[in-house]
Amino acid sequence: MPEKRNSASDLFTISFGMAVSDPSSAGMSGAAEWTDVAPFEEILRAGSLRLSEGASRGEEGLGWKTLPWKNIDPVEETARWLSEFGSIVQIGIGGSALGNQMLHGALLPPYWNELPRSKRDAPRFFLSDNVDPRDNHGVWNLIEAEKTAFVVISKSGSTAETMANFLFFWDRLKVELGPKRAAERVVVITDEKQGALRPFAEEIGCRSLVLPSDVGGRFSVLSPVGLLSASALGISAPKLLQGAAELEEKLSSRTTLQTNPAWLLAALSVVHYRKGRNMTVMMPYEDALDRFSEWYAQLWGESLGKNGSGSTPVKALGAIDQHSQIQLYTDGPDDKLFTVISTSDGEEDIIIPETEEKSLMGLSYLFGQSMNSLRRYEALSTMAALAKTGKPVISLKLPEIDPRRLGALIQFYENVTALTGYILDVNPFDQPGVEQGKNYTYGLMGRPNYSSQALEVTELAEELSLQQITL
Amino acid sequence: MPEKRNSASDLFTISFGMAVSDPSSAGMSGAAEWTDVAPFEEILRAGSLRLSEGASRGEEGLGWKTLPWKNIDPVEETARWLSEFGSIVQIGIGGSALGNQMLHGALLPPYWNELPRSKRDAPRFFLSDNVDPRDNHGVWNLIEAEKTAFVVISKSGSTAETMANFLFFWDRLKVELGPKRAAERVVVITDEKQGALRPFAEEIGCRSLVLPSDVGGRFSVLSPVGLLSASALGISAPKLLQGAAELEEKLSSRTTLQTNPAWLLAALSVVHYRKGRNMTVMMPYEDALDRFSEWYAQLWGESLGKNGSGSTPVKALGAIDQHSQIQLYTDGPDDKLFTVISTSDGEEDIIIPETEEKSLMGLSYLFGQSMNSLRRYEALSTMAALAKTGKPVISLKLPEIDPRRLGALIQFYENVTALTGYILDVNPFDQPGVEQGKNYTYGLMGRPNYSSQALEVTELAEELSLQQITL
Repeated sequence: MPEKRNSASDLFTISFGMAVSDPSSAGMSGAAEWTDVAPFEEILRAGSLRLSEGASRGEEGLGWKTLPWKNIDPVEETARWLSEFGSIVQIGIGGSALGNQMLHGALLPPYWNELPRSKRDAPRFFLSDNVDPRDNHGVWNLIEAEKTAFVVISKSGSTAETMANFLFFWDRLKVELGPKRAAERVVVITDEKQGALRPFAEEIGCRSLVLPSDVGGRFSVLSPVGLLSASALGISAPKLLQGAAELEEKLSSRTTLQTNPAWLLAALSVVHYRKGRNMTVMMPYEDALDRFSEWYAQLWGESLGKNGSGSTPVKALGAIDQHSQIQLYTDGPDDKLFTVISTSDGEEDIIIPETEEKSLMGLSYLFGQSMNSLRRYEALSTMAALAKTGKPVISLKLPEIDPRRLGALIQFYENVTALTGYILDVNPFDQPGVEQGKNYTYGLMGRPNYSSQALEVTELAEELSLQQITL
Repeated sequence: MPEKRNSASDLFTISFGMAVSDPSSAGMSGAAEWTDVAPFEEILRAGSLRLSEGASRGEEGLGWKTLPWKNIDPVEETARWLSEFGSIVQIGIGGSALGNQMLHGALLPPYWNELPRSKRDAPRFFLSDNVDPRDNHGVWNLIEAEKTAFVVISKSGSTAETMANFLFFWDRLKVELGPKRAAERVVVITDEKQGALRPFAEEIGCRSLVLPSDVGGRFSVLSPVGLLSASALGISAPKLLQGAAELEEKLSSRTTLQTNPAWLLAALSVVHYRKGRNMTVMMPYEDALDRFSEWYAQLWGESLGKNGSGSTPVKALGAIDQHSQIQLYTDGPDDKLFTVISTSDGEEDIIIPETEEKSLMGLSYLFGQSMNSLRRYEALSTMAALAKTGKPVISLKLPEIDPRRLGALIQFYENVTALTGYILDVNPFDQPGVEQGKNYTYGLMGRPNYSSQALEVTELAEELSLQQITL
């Protein structure tokens, strides 16, 4: 395959087809046309300006734009202390968990916790996100309290799942080690002023880091939320930030739709959504990026799913989903925009060995080929099969998965998301729709002042179980 | 909350609201009406009959209907042998992996591989599904060849990913132990007659099990594909089958729409799809069922995504996705049908401990409450919040996650899927849409007779990269 070589310093390349309105010429049936996206150029220019100016004014929700230049000395110092423990248990959910899973998945060797310490040279990492007694007991039974640090993350300090899980570990820790030694093993990441965790850190005298108040949870991975555990496990936080900073600088110098891929992706996502494609499938062809899709799903879904509108992020993984979702993707309805992320062949490869058994001679086409090239061909084949049936496909190629490029990719999709919100005239930084469920739970848990919520949820629950069939 | 108690022998309960067409009365705006589903009763009755009769005639694709009554002595005997190893590496993808992950996730303790052998009393389990050099090296470095068994699963024996991964492990194993001892550590699960793996098993003299030719990959979890590793890890295969058999018997005695939940779910899914809800969200509130959604996604997507039609399965997990997707689900567009799976409070629970720090007194509503009830309340709150904004919700309640009920749940959704295909007049047992991508890959890999495919994919790839922007 002829393909443009990336230079060593490139961050990544975005490719896509464009339809041509002249029916006599070629062009991909599922792709958009330049005339579809062109009308968005002005609004994107205004949106970019608004984001940069708002960020420099410290506007609510825009802190992520300036994270790449923040001083991270306190994070790195805490990380050095943390890295001496045998295990880290992080307690957090949503934006206080998905970014960590993404960074670790992409940049640490697989089976991290199962590696012997000599091959890890850093702590094991456990996440307590869901309220699940089985998981929490599981984690507690695997660690040695003495040699474990607990990182609890909640901006508000009132996240029910996080605080319930923390109360469990905190109680066990105090019983095991006494309050003073327990406190020596806790780090809190929370707002500088608001909420219960800041005064808690002061009350027990434990370490703490600041989650800047202008950074929302789903935009917080390059803040202490994501950087602390990454750095403690040996991932370079400065390089993550360097990539994000480079990305911001490059984007700010690209002031046309043809040259600015963040503008283009925002415009394309709106064009396809308005054509009835109400799903956006993120499909990396790399196990290391499996969790990237989960992080992206929160970023995209929670930022843009508002006022009865919003495309739904669908997580996929190549080549696995060729054996699960490709039938639907190619032969099903044209209701999705696809992004396929692939990488150049990395240094770690396997040459598929030849074998001598006669029964396996039908596989000779595999002998001597590299697994990386098989995977790259599969990504290309999937994109082509989708395009052939008229589905729109965006290809994002990373020369390598390293901290610098992952930092850039994170910052890139944060920009795409915010700009899409600007086009759609929704605030990408709030999440009013999550309150109702929380209030119902408070009501059911008997929290003071929530009794009317308890009543309402009980009535709705009765309606929901009007028809009931037991097998 | 008043709620109907399940009897110990119940499999599970499905509940949902029904809208009422009389506008003066109550009723849920997002729910369907009885008059919507009633027209499907006859076709479902015919479909059920066709499935049972086809299965007893051994019709292509219908073997899953009779799996619950198959003799599994050979599986259990192989499992006993397998259970003596230190590790099992299973090599398979799609239907030869997702079912295993579901069974293990639901029925084994979490962090299985990290438990000390004394607490596991069964082998560690590794899966090689994707073609990923990093993962395959990772697995190889964690195992001791001598003490490891390899289970390779491919019905056709030609799945590129599976065979590439197997060639890697097989080569290493032969180098390490010599061909004879290597063969003593391999089990093949494949078709009785077709494909390369059956003659391979004979050629090297290794163990093998039969994947019945009338059972498709995504319907194969209750065949040796899913049962072998489950049984080797201590999960009761007879109980899985017993639950599936009970389910079949109960369904066959329910011959009206009002009493047969498989009929109802099939009808409801078609009604909602035709109302523009092109996604079906599967959201268990139980970490143990996280992988159930992945298994279901293949079953649903690959069976029904055909001829330009088909709803897209979206995987979610409560309460985690309250902090990621709920904003979109409640406040976004009305384009999804939701299924929330919850369980009764299990035996394993955590009472959230009280604590003495003044700063945490705002959490006193949590003190002394059980984590299981918090989770149950959250599931209920999510369902109510969805219903309040007019989204259709189906609630499925499992009294307990045990092998019998999981077997029943598997068989249940296989029936729902097949019946939905019957209503939509698509064949739920084929997957013609996956061939194109495979053929392109064969072309790119230089497999003989695929050069025209190579040409076509190269042309499409050029169109796809017409617009290219590097950052």
